[in-house]
Amino acid sequence: MNETLEQLRASVDGIDSQLLELLSKRAELVHQIGQVKESQGVPKFEPEREKEILDRITGLNKGPFPDSTLKHLFKEIFKASLNIQQEDHKRQLLV
Amino acid sequence: MNETLEQLRASVDGIDSQLLELLSKRAELVHQIGQVKESQGVPKFEPEREKEILDRITGLNKGPFPDSTLKHLFKEIFKASLNIQQEDHKRQLLV
Repeated sequence: MNETLEQLRASVDGIDSQLLELLSKRAELVHQIGQVKESQGVPKFEPEREKEILDRITGLNKGPFPDSTLKHLFKEIFKASLNIQQEDHKRQLLV
Repeated sequence: MNETLEQLRASVDGIDSQLLELLSKRAELVHQIGQVKESQGVPKFEPEREKEILDRITGLNKGPFPDSTLKHLFKEIFKASLNIQQEDHKRQLLV
């Protein structure tokens, strides 16, 4: 493998570590949001808020991903976060 | 909406902007990697490299996402990047 490929891959690894960190922080925040909502008795899933986030992201998008791809990736992130919240809820019910 | 919820959401928005930036940078790097590989005549899709990235990420994972969720999210990111490379290739064929 030549040096350039090695270097590019090292950069990808660096970005991936940062992505992991941000995704984990995001999940913590969503968990806190879920707790605030629970204390206020409001529903955890709010489709309007999701739409707002997607509109914001595609508004900021300068490529190279097309908007449709970013929407797909962020929806997967939403789904993953919602799964954690549902696990939390199940755990609460079991306690 | 109370202040706490507003603040938490502002933090999520901040993280999402960073995620967008990192995902876009990552796509640029993957595009460059694709060009290097093309010049060397090696296949663009390398399952071992994907496995290496997933092992690295789950090795660094401290939660709250389970490893399985992170693997799923990163596979979606791989797929999105590969789609861009395939589009590049199609464009080259058309030129």
